[in-house]
Amino acid sequence: MKLLDNITPLEENFAQWYQDVVVKGNLIDYGQAKGSMIFKPISFGIWENIQKFMNEEIRKVGGKNVYLPLLIPMSYIEKEKDHVKGFAPELATVTRVGDKELAEPYVIRPTSEVLFGELFSKEINSYNDLPIIYNQWANVMRWEKTTNPFLRNREFLWQEGHTCHSTPEEARKLTRKMINTYAKFLKKYLAIPVIVGKKTPKEKFAGAMTTYTIEAMMKDGKALQAGTSHYLAQNFAKAFNIQFTNKDNKKEYVYQTSWGVSTRLIGALIMSHGDNRGIIIPPMIAPTQVDILEIFGNKNESVKVAAKKLKTDLGRKYRVRLDDSNKMPGFKAGKSEIEGTPLRIEVGPRDLENNQVTIVRRDTLEKMQVNLNDVKSKIKELLKDIQDNLYNQASDRLNKNIVHVNNYDEFKKQIEDRKFVAVPFAGTDKDEEDIKKETGASTRCIPFNIKLKEPKKCMTTGKLTRRLVIFARAY
Amino acid sequence: MKLLDNITPLEENFAQWYQDVVVKGNLIDYGQAKGSMIFKPISFGIWENIQKFMNEEIRKVGGKNVYLPLLIPMSYIEKEKDHVKGFAPELATVTRVGDKELAEPYVIRPTSEVLFGELFSKEINSYNDLPIIYNQWANVMRWEKTTNPFLRNREFLWQEGHTCHSTPEEARKLTRKMINTYAKFLKKYLAIPVIVGKKTPKEKFAGAMTTYTIEAMMKDGKALQAGTSHYLAQNFAKAFNIQFTNKDNKKEYVYQTSWGVSTRLIGALIMSHGDNRGIIIPPMIAPTQVDILEIFGNKNESVKVAAKKLKTDLGRKYRVRLDDSNKMPGFKAGKSEIEGTPLRIEVGPRDLENNQVTIVRRDTLEKMQVNLNDVKSKIKELLKDIQDNLYNQASDRLNKNIVHVNNYDEFKKQIEDRKFVAVPFAGTDKDEEDIKKETGASTRCIPFNIKLKEPKKCMTTGKLTRRLVIFARAY
Repeated sequence: MKLLDNITPLEENFAQWYQDVVVKGNLIDYGQAKGSMIFKPISFGIWENIQKFMNEEIRKVGGKNVYLPLLIPMSYIEKEKDHVKGFAPELATVTRVGDKELAEPYVIRPTSEVLFGELFSKEINSYNDLPIIYNQWANVMRWEKTTNPFLRNREFLWQEGHTCHSTPEEARKLTRKMINTYAKFLKKYLAIPVIVGKKTPKEKFAGAMTTYTIEAMMKDGKALQAGTSHYLAQNFAKAFNIQFTNKDNKKEYVYQTSWGVSTRLIGALIMSHGDNRGIIIPPMIAPTQVDILEIFGNKNESVKVAAKKLKTDLGRKYRVRLDDSNKMPGFKAGKSEIEGTPLRIEVGPRDLENNQVTIVRRDTLEKMQVNLNDVKSKIKELLKDIQDNLYNQASDRLNKNIVHVNNYDEFKKQIEDRKFVAVPFAGTDKDEEDIKKETGASTRCIPFNIKLKEPKKCMTTGKLTRRLVIFARAY
Repeated sequence: MKLLDNITPLEENFAQWYQDVVVKGNLIDYGQAKGSMIFKPISFGIWENIQKFMNEEIRKVGGKNVYLPLLIPMSYIEKEKDHVKGFAPELATVTRVGDKELAEPYVIRPTSEVLFGELFSKEINSYNDLPIIYNQWANVMRWEKTTNPFLRNREFLWQEGHTCHSTPEEARKLTRKMINTYAKFLKKYLAIPVIVGKKTPKEKFAGAMTTYTIEAMMKDGKALQAGTSHYLAQNFAKAFNIQFTNKDNKKEYVYQTSWGVSTRLIGALIMSHGDNRGIIIPPMIAPTQVDILEIFGNKNESVKVAAKKLKTDLGRKYRVRLDDSNKMPGFKAGKSEIEGTPLRIEVGPRDLENNQVTIVRRDTLEKMQVNLNDVKSKIKELLKDIQDNLYNQASDRLNKNIVHVNNYDEFKKQIEDRKFVAVPFAGTDKDEEDIKKETGASTRCIPFNIKLKEPKKCMTTGKLTRRLVIFARAY
């Protein structure tokens, strides 16, 4: 059975470990089109939970879900110049229907700012219509050269919020609110700590004035941009003529934001918590929180009865799966492990004689015998403990691997050591490019919560600066 | 304010009435690409509820949600000959990325049988792996010549189930199970009665052996195919080499089904229940079940307090929206009506003096004064009553407008009269085409529950037949 093939140890070859985990853990299959992939039930189940819980957050800020078209007329996407420049080489373009050439080609949305721009220009008349906070769950396409499941797919799924406001202050406030919402969401549900900060001009979104980001640290020390929130100012409003009559009865362009997280989060989750047995899914987001395994249930009726009863009892409160197949116990346990279910309960004949079952934690692999009467309370306690443990481990790793340096030699050494390197930096886009060429590291963000107390010399230019920037190699 | 513009009376011009309802009722906006549309919060909210409740039904049959790629390599879709023939002229084709021509073009999925076929061929080894029941919520594209919001969009959203089985009996059973599930779903949630039956060979899905359908009757007497379920036999299994080792240890092709409902359902809902004031959304599926309107709340603090309290109280159990804007009462009522909210509660100063509010039903427009203490129980009773009333009205209309005829003259007269015409019919594909050309009517289905007791003469061929077919003009 392929599923239980060995996984390459992560210390040995992290990239291969990742490929093994996603394929052997039944998370994905590759599609026919290069760079495309299939979300199998486990990974799509994680995504559905992300959608469910994120929708609650979006509703809290007054967001409403909508759905806009997949295709954008070429002439439309060209309206905001910086924006189209940022995406042009990656745009998949429909030029033909059946055997007929189209008069105007359409691109598959790489993001939907221009479509929302057009909609807003029709919906907004006066300040009474503002703010508008829309969100869309959609597939988008960016034709990347190198692809990697979840991390860099040509087609990916995401949530994109698009909003219009009557003042820049209100728009900026929501931009920050959403990046903080994402940070909290990752902490609470995915057990992933992040650094929240601002992108340098070089790394910001094409068409935005300011881009905020959350950056997570993977187990190989590389950074992963896990979500972004953009203050668009009036750039798209001017390109799409989105005006409102303000309280002084004057026409004014709206102030906009956009923000999104994508199926990248699943990659972040795998590389934050996985081990040499596969993925470990945090209980809060797991499609299956508890696997119940019948041990020799085909030979023992009381096992079948007890397992089924547990499924029913626990199923009222938790997402539970019952493996009542006649496969061998070792196979069932291995499957539950490689698929990352936080807890499994083994219901076997010998345990049952003592009115107990065996519970195994996926994170620590700790086994414990638990009296049937105590299973419910034990499950509750363990799920909480696993969630906390995963977060604490990831958080310790992040904190230990942020280092401060002051010069380029130290910088290079620490980047080579796979650290997040915080450094005073006031260089240009060109300087960033040169550093990336030499070290592989890019600027991740100017963090909100890590500050220079006083101006220091920029690592590159030698000028005094208060700007502390985090560099790292990144996905 | 555009929203409260008049709607063309449906008796006068049904097509225009429909366009007015979808645009003025804030359901859609048109996209830039011809035939594309934007789902605004109300229509997308209906779709999200359809997804939520349909997911429960799909889970009951053991279905798991997955997500497959948007793009299909051209060579792949050509593997099943009948299938590609059915879709070829409607296939939107990506030939270019940025300014580079692709070596092989990709089509945007018009449906995903071939992608699932490829996946199944990899996942299935033995009878132990069967059945597999997968479902996908996705956008699909069919480049139709004439388009109509919800009913015939080039891009639409749908649910597509794809399953594999080890016996034809099991597959056929699930095919029927799903069409009956759809029929029950439409009845319970959308308050739409349907005729369940089998498509004639001419009207079946490209690549299927048998297609079952649910057919609804719109207020203009036209039919709307609201869902289909296909028994694919081994057609795709042979094209994609989906084999399993059966219990006799022999290789065998799997037996497949596929089934889907789409955002057409929203069109069906509008044309089943709408009136000259706009859409009427059945309570079970309504994104907002109760609108609470402050009447002169800006001048009366007790109105504000009472409205807010109602929002909180009712919000625990129902989907409630509060209109606390300072717009005029008539405007607020009109907006609630045109947007189809089943119930509205008007909280006004004069009513409050008597410790009461005014509740208005959207379906009958009946107004009633209700004591504040009785609001909760009244709302419960009214929502149920509206749901039942909408279903009963639609059901009466359907039953009254099915007529039985025996010859072509009667047939033409009844079709002209916008009836569903049940007729003994054993004609060929060509006969169906001729009838459609002359009368505009197509075969809708061979119904399960309306049967000929004895063979009768076919309307076209004159041969004795037991096959009763329903014809109607259709969307």
